[in-house]
Amino acid sequence: MAGTGSQGLKSWAEAAPRLVAVAAGREPADLVVRDGRWVNVHSGEILPGTDVAVADGRIAYVGPSAAHAIGPRTVVIEARGRYLVPGLCDGHMHVESGMVTATEFARAVIPHGTTTMFVDPHEIANVLGLPGVRLMHDEAAGLPINMFVQMPSCVPSAPGLENAGASLGVAEVAEAMAWPNIVGLGEMMNFPGVAAGDATMLGEIAATQRAGKTVGGHYASPDLGAAFHAYVAGGPADDHEGTRAEDAVARVRQGMRAMLRLGSAWYDVAAQIKAVTEQGLDSRNFILCTDDSHSGTLVHEGHMNRVVRHAIAQGLAPVTAIQMATLNTAQHFGLERELGSITPGRRADLLITSDLVSLPVETVIARGIVVAEHGRLTIDIPAYPYPPEALGTVKLGRAIQPADFAIAAPEGANQVVANVIGVIENQAPTRALTRALPCADGLVGMDRAADVCQIAVVERHRGEGRVANGFVSGFGYSVDCAVASTVAHDSHHMIVVGTNHADMAQAANRLAEVGGGIVVIAGGKELALVELPIAGLMSDERAEIVADKAGRMVEAMRACGCTLNNAYMQHSLMALVVIPELRISDIGLVDVRTFQKIDLFVKE
Amino acid sequence: MAGTGSQGLKSWAEAAPRLVAVAAGREPADLVVRDGRWVNVHSGEILPGTDVAVADGRIAYVGPSAAHAIGPRTVVIEARGRYLVPGLCDGHMHVESGMVTATEFARAVIPHGTTTMFVDPHEIANVLGLPGVRLMHDEAAGLPINMFVQMPSCVPSAPGLENAGASLGVAEVAEAMAWPNIVGLGEMMNFPGVAAGDATMLGEIAATQRAGKTVGGHYASPDLGAAFHAYVAGGPADDHEGTRAEDAVARVRQGMRAMLRLGSAWYDVAAQIKAVTEQGLDSRNFILCTDDSHSGTLVHEGHMNRVVRHAIAQGLAPVTAIQMATLNTAQHFGLERELGSITPGRRADLLITSDLVSLPVETVIARGIVVAEHGRLTIDIPAYPYPPEALGTVKLGRAIQPADFAIAAPEGANQVVANVIGVIENQAPTRALTRALPCADGLVGMDRAADVCQIAVVERHRGEGRVANGFVSGFGYSVDCAVASTVAHDSHHMIVVGTNHADMAQAANRLAEVGGGIVVIAGGKELALVELPIAGLMSDERAEIVADKAGRMVEAMRACGCTLNNAYMQHSLMALVVIPELRISDIGLVDVRTFQKIDLFVKE
Repeated sequence: MAGTGSQGLKSWAEAAPRLVAVAAGREPADLVVRDGRWVNVHSGEILPGTDVAVADGRIAYVGPSAAHAIGPRTVVIEARGRYLVPGLCDGHMHVESGMVTATEFARAVIPHGTTTMFVDPHEIANVLGLPGVRLMHDEAAGLPINMFVQMPSCVPSAPGLENAGASLGVAEVAEAMAWPNIVGLGEMMNFPGVAAGDATMLGEIAATQRAGKTVGGHYASPDLGAAFHAYVAGGPADDHEGTRAEDAVARVRQGMRAMLRLGSAWYDVAAQIKAVTEQGLDSRNFILCTDDSHSGTLVHEGHMNRVVRHAIAQGLAPVTAIQMATLNTAQHFGLERELGSITPGRRADLLITSDLVSLPVETVIARGIVVAEHGRLTIDIPAYPYPPEALGTVKLGRAIQPADFAIAAPEGANQVVANVIGVIENQAPTRALTRALPCADGLVGMDRAADVCQIAVVERHRGEGRVANGFVSGFGYSVDCAVASTVAHDSHHMIVVGTNHADMAQAANRLAEVGGGIVVIAGGKELALVELPIAGLMSDERAEIVADKAGRMVEAMRACGCTLNNAYMQHSLMALVVIPELRISDIGLVDVRTFQKIDLFVKE
Repeated sequence: MAGTGSQGLKSWAEAAPRLVAVAAGREPADLVVRDGRWVNVHSGEILPGTDVAVADGRIAYVGPSAAHAIGPRTVVIEARGRYLVPGLCDGHMHVESGMVTATEFARAVIPHGTTTMFVDPHEIANVLGLPGVRLMHDEAAGLPINMFVQMPSCVPSAPGLENAGASLGVAEVAEAMAWPNIVGLGEMMNFPGVAAGDATMLGEIAATQRAGKTVGGHYASPDLGAAFHAYVAGGPADDHEGTRAEDAVARVRQGMRAMLRLGSAWYDVAAQIKAVTEQGLDSRNFILCTDDSHSGTLVHEGHMNRVVRHAIAQGLAPVTAIQMATLNTAQHFGLERELGSITPGRRADLLITSDLVSLPVETVIARGIVVAEHGRLTIDIPAYPYPPEALGTVKLGRAIQPADFAIAAPEGANQVVANVIGVIENQAPTRALTRALPCADGLVGMDRAADVCQIAVVERHRGEGRVANGFVSGFGYSVDCAVASTVAHDSHHMIVVGTNHADMAQAANRLAEVGGGIVVIAGGKELALVELPIAGLMSDERAEIVADKAGRMVEAMRACGCTLNNAYMQHSLMALVVIPELRISDIGLVDVRTFQKIDLFVKE
């Protein structure tokens, strides 16, 4: 495997002389794990009485006895009949969703048995562009576990409908493909573009294919007709946007891999796994992933161990579920000879567990080092030094005033019919509503009783001080309050939702002050703050602290009257102008059914 | 996929705009196959009522109706409910075993449904070195089907025990890895060397791994202990030398792919497939191959269709057997997105058959072109122009005389006890025999009654005129005769076996005259001749003619008293100084148990 981008780890080719010598009994191993039940993801068997010998971070020998590899300085771990499972792989995910750094994300998930992640730094790319991707690439490459990077494909997500902090195209993709830790192209979300033959999208795919790397897919539509077939012909090799069994079946039949997602707010495994458990499709084409995990999920519930457990609970044999989080993933990314199984030459990434169904993660070994035991990290991972340009990214150019949120009424009107974004609980799409709103003093008012308040996108990448205003219904805010966030998919301007202009201005200015994050203001008082100073997306603190602050933030939203499930996620998706029906971006209100900017008011 | 080395075929990236347009219904396809039963090797299903649309040699659409892709110039083939099977892949083979050129091999196997071969030009490499590999590489790249080349790893097979026509090492392997049509390293036969940490062997493997290509294995030993584990740690990714179910199981458990071989003289599928049919191992790790097919097999029995049929007869589900000759093979070589299934983007290589068990190959399509129907090629494939240096390779330097085969007796002896190579029917190993032989006129005689005749290796690469003499028993020659061959694994000097010196000399000189091949002389009369002018290994004639001549050659050997099964193969393996017990090379008699040259006579 050329260029796997892991500092300090010898390649198999470099390590081979020693691996051979250890296997042959001519040299001692660095580490021997004795008497395990080998979960063999190649053969699909569980083989008791297995020893594993490790040298230079790679597996040298797996078999009935590694006694010949134990020297005076060899570390010996007694598995005592417990299961040896390959380190778990997350096939597609975004570090930023955890609101922590890549390093902190690794710290949080290693104790859960995750040793490999395929991450798409799509969010930081929208703020910092290619240098942001490079930062996460470099941070990932220095970790003691495997974090491979997928080059973001759609920055901005909706050219013409938003102005992101940066723009990536074919040239940037081609450049990134030469970086050692880039494993492929991140989810190709512009599925209408691919199906329409868009030259930039096909150019990015082509640059990835030419580099021999993997093109990630994202076909977020239930239409399995011509548009789907055209998308497949364009080259994406996987997809994690399916939700129904028929979605998974369609993807596998077309030679794509179905990635099944269990994230903090995604529940797409149960329905789709029936393609295997009920329809009997060849399970090698299925891969488990999280896509988006919040810090709270990482701290309180787990990571890929949670997904594997869940998959087993749906009726999969444990070995099959584990294959979907190890070997299948590695094969998909062309890394089968590098990781994903406990076999010679591969990185010595494995976990020890006493039960394959409940999957308690008792010991985690990465590259031959014990990195966690019983839920606690046993190594130090130094923080990555983010440079200043990654920190000062909330640029408003001026102090935001309450008047910036004033919405002028049409001349002489004392009522208007406004286009209003309607939030739907537990769903990403919104509804395009119309609501009659009162006018006074030349301004359009809100209607708290009818659950209509204001929403604004505040430009924050170039300090232009622009504010795009609109109306939203469904959050349920019942008091004077405002919530602001610089996590605002995908362009990551600042989204402010509020019931009065003063709180809205205060919230916006507060985030500018702390370099980004999420804040809840009620009647001039700050109820909660999550500081996210890195690109306005990620904290520099520990996952536990971020989870705690995020929890308090959700509590504060609730205190203001918002009882939606995943209320904050709904807030942060209000600017995602690729999902119907109505959204708001920095250019104004957008009808995502027609991909056009529309007026705030319905024409008479 | 970077550099797949196929002239004229657009890459997926290049073809994508048109593939997308055809799938979407905006452009007509070049070819549509209508109403097939889709053998879906990804899902493991068989899906009736499937249409396939092809553009630019690649698959654009597979689904319920390609009506939208049929334009006025679209070729339409009616499958009428017959099965659509991906073109069959041979996972490891040697073209030279067919004694025909790569082009002619392709001509012979295309009607049998083979559209992809992974060939190791090990034989021509022993004669012509790296330029010989390049010749076959270039010939392969120009074919209308897929022939990928594995760079030979062990030339010569036994350094120090033979002088081949050429020598390849780490530098040559590294150079070849940059050629577009090189897919990996050919079978790493020096398994003791790998297990011992030999720097050249590990260096060749490392050069291959660094290029991101596949290391072929060859572990020809029943020892599954330390030597096997050390070999695996060295890096080979597959092995086709297993013969027992436990061999296949051991390889798969260690993360290698088990290649199961059904060649003209190899019968290794039946025993090993039990690892799947009886032990239930995950079948994705199993690949079918032929390794060595004689022209007669190709002409009269088939190629990969014969292997798949045989695997099904052993109890495999047809789809599983087909996976082992399509998708599994493609995945192993990192070509999954390029070929091995009937899905969008892949090369449009498929066959149409009305029965999945008997597998009659009715139509073969390669890169969207109908290349064979009902057993007959429907396209023209021009012969590859081999250059002069590939033709004049039998260099004896002088006319061989009967006296060159005279074996001097020890001073004053009238009898000697000689070390004699004992041929064992149906086995590659030989037996180390001792036989008392009479002496007369200062020379040692043969003993026709005891089935002891002479064997000689005549140096033919450098025109040195050297002759190494010895004795062999087991061929059963009962008349005055000699058989000579320039196919003489692996160094491919000339092996002459005969019951009298005159016929031996005549045979040797005849082969020099025709540029190599096989000849049978009896009492001065030429009973049979197979001319192999290309490197002394391959004919420039059609497979049918070569098969016919080879058949007559075997008949002639039989007429001389040799009734062994695969008699000619035994003859051609007599110089293979890596398989025990006794062999003869250009340096003389070799004891392969000790890897030492030994004397012709047993010391008193």
